[in-house]
Amino acid sequence: MENHKESASTGWKVKASQTSNNTFNPIRAIVDGMVITPNSDKEMIALSLGDPTVFGNFPPPDTAVQGLLDAVTSGKYNGYGPSYGHVEARAAVANHVTTDGAVVDKGDVYLSCGCSDALNMAITVLADRGDNILVPCPGFSLYKTLSISQGIDVKLYKCKPEKCWETDLDHMASLIDSRTKAIVVVNPSNPCGSNFSRQHICDIIKVAEEYRIPIIADEIYADIVFKNERFVSCASMSANVPILSCGGIAKKFLVPGWRLGWVVVHDRHGIFGTEIRMGLVKLSQRILGPCTLIQGALPAILSTPKSFHLETIRKLEENADYLFNQINGLPGLNPIKPTAAMYMMVGFDKQHYPEFKDDVAFTERLISEQSVFCLPAKCFEYPNYFRVVLSVPRNKTEEACARLKKFCDMHYHP
Amino acid sequence: MENHKESASTGWKVKASQTSNNTFNPIRAIVDGMVITPNSDKEMIALSLGDPTVFGNFPPPDTAVQGLLDAVTSGKYNGYGPSYGHVEARAAVANHVTTDGAVVDKGDVYLSCGCSDALNMAITVLADRGDNILVPCPGFSLYKTLSISQGIDVKLYKCKPEKCWETDLDHMASLIDSRTKAIVVVNPSNPCGSNFSRQHICDIIKVAEEYRIPIIADEIYADIVFKNERFVSCASMSANVPILSCGGIAKKFLVPGWRLGWVVVHDRHGIFGTEIRMGLVKLSQRILGPCTLIQGALPAILSTPKSFHLETIRKLEENADYLFNQINGLPGLNPIKPTAAMYMMVGFDKQHYPEFKDDVAFTERLISEQSVFCLPAKCFEYPNYFRVVLSVPRNKTEEACARLKKFCDMHYHP
Ligand SMILES: Cc1ncc(COP(=O)(O)O)c(C=O)c1O
Ligand SMILES: Cc1ncc(COP(=O)(O)O)c(C=O)c1O
Repeated sequence: MENHKESASTGWKVKASQTSNNTFNPIRAIVDGMVITPNSDKEMIALSLGDPTVFGNFPPPDTAVQGLLDAVTSGKYNGYGPSYGHVEARAAVANHVTTDGAVVDKGDVYLSCGCSDALNMAITVLADRGDNILVPCPGFSLYKTLSISQGIDVKLYKCKPEKCWETDLDHMASLIDSRTKAIVVVNPSNPCGSNFSRQHICDIIKVAEEYRIPIIADEIYADIVFKNERFVSCASMSANVPILSCGGIAKKFLVPGWRLGWVVVHDRHGIFGTEIRMGLVKLSQRILGPCTLIQGALPAILSTPKSFHLETIRKLEENADYLFNQINGLPGLNPIKPTAAMYMMVGFDKQHYPEFKDDVAFTERLISEQSVFCLPAKCFEYPNYFRVVLSVPRNKTEEACARLKKFCDMHYHP
Repeated sequence: MENHKESASTGWKVKASQTSNNTFNPIRAIVDGMVITPNSDKEMIALSLGDPTVFGNFPPPDTAVQGLLDAVTSGKYNGYGPSYGHVEARAAVANHVTTDGAVVDKGDVYLSCGCSDALNMAITVLADRGDNILVPCPGFSLYKTLSISQGIDVKLYKCKPEKCWETDLDHMASLIDSRTKAIVVVNPSNPCGSNFSRQHICDIIKVAEEYRIPIIADEIYADIVFKNERFVSCASMSANVPILSCGGIAKKFLVPGWRLGWVVVHDRHGIFGTEIRMGLVKLSQRILGPCTLIQGALPAILSTPKSFHLETIRKLEENADYLFNQINGLPGLNPIKPTAAMYMMVGFDKQHYPEFKDDVAFTERLISEQSVFCLPAKCFEYPNYFRVVLSVPRNKTEEACARLKKFCDMHYHP
C-alpha cells in the first residue's frame, strides 16, 4: 500500500484547461499582486470596494426585503422555472425598463444570474473564438475576462477624461474590422462615474449603424445619475441598431449578492432575427437561470418607490461633491467630477510624484502609510489614475481625505 | 425616414455564435419537436417532469425555509461575497459531505449556481476544445450540452439495464484516448434511478486509475437511496484518483429553484495541484457565484434532520414499488426496478408494439390517447425506453398506471 501510494502520483498529468487559465480577472491579478500592509496605527479605510453594502449605510429597500420574505413564505418559488425566467418576473422587468423611446415586451427579456451572467450571455451569443468586441478604456474589466476566456479578442476604445469620459469616436471606428461582433457601451460607467448625454449616445449609435455592429449596452447603473443629469438608454436612441441591454438589481436596489440580472433584446427591424433570441434561451439552459425566489420577489423589488432611489443618489452625490472638492484641492491630483454611478477617477501627476513609478506604487504606499485603499486604475487598463468609491460613509470619507492630504503633502515634489 | 427605415435592415449580417448554436439541449429539442396534444377528455398527468416540487407533495424542510427567512431579515447577505462562496457556507458543505473515507475541508469546496453550474465548472476546468470526456449512456443530457457548447467532445459509455445499470467497464475503458480529460460518473442516476454498490464504484475507480483519468462525480442525488441501499460516494472509495464531486441542495432538500450547488475537490495526492483549484476560482469569477441569501441559509438548510430525508425516501420508494409492480404487469413493457433517486426507466418491446417506430412515437400517442406524458429516453440517448418520475402524488400515479394499462391493452400485439 505504501508503494502504491508512492506510485499514485506518478503517471498523472492533469492540467487546468486553457479556458480556465485564460479566465483572467485583472482586478484580482493586480490587487493580489499588491503589497497591502496597512499602517498598524491607523484603521484601514477601503475606498476600493465596488460593493455599496459593506458599510451598512446603503441598506436595501423595504419593498425588496418584504417582497422576498413573501416569496419565501408563499412556497411558490421552490421549483425550477423556465431557464430564462418566470413570465411574471420578465414582465416586471419589461415594465421597469420600458421608456417612451423603447417599449419592451416580456418576450424581449431574458433573466440571468446577475448582470455578469447577462454580459456573458450577450457576448457569447454574438461572438465566437477569433471574433472581437470593442470595449471602453477605462472600463469594467469583466468584458475582457469573459471574452478572453472564450478566445474572443477585445479591442479597447479610448474614453476622454477631459470630455467627461466621452468616447473617442474616431478611435472606436478605427478599431472595427470584419471580425468585430459587438460594441460594448457602459453608461453610466464604472469606473468613470460618467453619464453620457443624449447627443453622445446618438453619436455612438451612428458609428455602430455605419459599420453595422450591434451594441451591448451595460446599463447596470441605469437611473443612478446625479441631479440635473438624465439617464438615456442606448435603446431609446436607436432607430436601427439592434441592442442587447444588460442590467440588473445589484446597484439600483443595493442587493448585489442577490444575483439577478437580465438581457433585454431591442431589435426594431428584426436584425437579430429569432436566432439571437433562441441563442439566449439556449445559453440560459446551461445553468438554468437565477434563483427563483428572487424572481418571485422581482415585481415587488421593481415597485420600490422613486424616493428610495432619490435618497440613494442624494447620498452618493453628496459624497461625490465632498470627495471632488477635497481631492481637487490636493497638489498633483486631478479628480474627474462624477455625474453618475458610484465612482470617481483621480489622475495623479507622475512628474510631481517621482517616487512612484505608477498607480500601483502610489496606492500601495498610500495603504502602508495612511491605511487608505484606492483601486489602481491599471485594473481598468488605465494607469496613472486611481478609483475611489462614493458609497463610503461620510465620516470615513472625511478621514480618508484628511489622510490623503497628508500623503500628498509628504510626497508632492513641486 | 421611411427610406432610412427600409435601408435599415440591409447590410446587417448578425448571426448567433457557433457557441450558442451548439448549446444543444436534447430534452428541449426532442420535447419541443414532439406532437403534444392531450386527449381533451382526460386531464394531463405529467410523469415527465424532473422537478419534485410541481405537485406540492414534496414541500421543502422547515429548517430551509426558516433559515432563509432568517438570512433575509438579518440583512447580512445583501452584498457580494467571494465568488466561490462565503466561508461559513463552504464550511457547512464540507461538514455535510465529509465521510469516514473522505474528509473534506472548507478549502476544498467551491460554491456554484446549482449543480448545473458545478458541472460546467468541473468540465470546463479539466477539458478544452478538442478534448473529450466520457459520459454515461443513458445519462443526464447536460454533460453533453455543456461540453459540445465549448467544442469538447463527449463519448458515451454504456450502462447495463440487466445489471441495475452498472457501467460496462470494458466499453468505458475502450473509449479512453489521449484527449480524454475526465470520466463523468452519475450516482445515483438520473434517468436510471440506480445506486451503485461499493464494489462497482471501486471497479470504476480502478479503470480511472489505470488510465490516469480524473473523475467528475455527479452526486446531486447523494443519500437519496431506498431502504437496504447505501450511498457510497466516489471520493470515499478513491485512494488515488482525484475527483471533482458535484452536488447541491436541489434534490435532497427539494428546492431546485434556489440554485445552489458545489464542486468539492478530492485530491489526496495533490495530483490536481493548485492549478485546478485556481482554475475553479477563476471560473467562478465569471458570474460571481450563487445568491448570497441562500449561502447565508446554507448552514441551516444542511442541518435539516435526517427524518425529513427518510420521509422523502419513503414516499419515493412507495411510488417506485407501485409503479414497478403495475408496469411490470403490462405486456411488452420492461421496467427496471429503481433503487434510488426519483426516476424509473421502462423499456418497451418494439416487436409487440409495431405501430410505434420508436419511444418518441410511443410516448406521443400515449399523450394523445391517454393524456399521460412520459419522457422518451431518446432524450438520454437511449431509445426504446421511456422515463417516469417517482415524485407524482399517489392518486395521479395510480390513474396514470390505469391509463397506461388501457393503452397497452389497446396497442399490444402478441
Ligand atoms: C459596469 C458593471 N457591469 C456589470 C457589473 C456586474 O453586476 P452584477 O453584480 O449584477 O453581476 C458591475 C459590477 O460591479 C459593473 O460595475
Ligand atoms: C443527474 C443530474 N445532475 C445535475 C442536475 C442539475 O441540478 P441543479 O438543478 O442543481 O442544477 C440534475 C437535475 O435534474 C440531474 O438530474
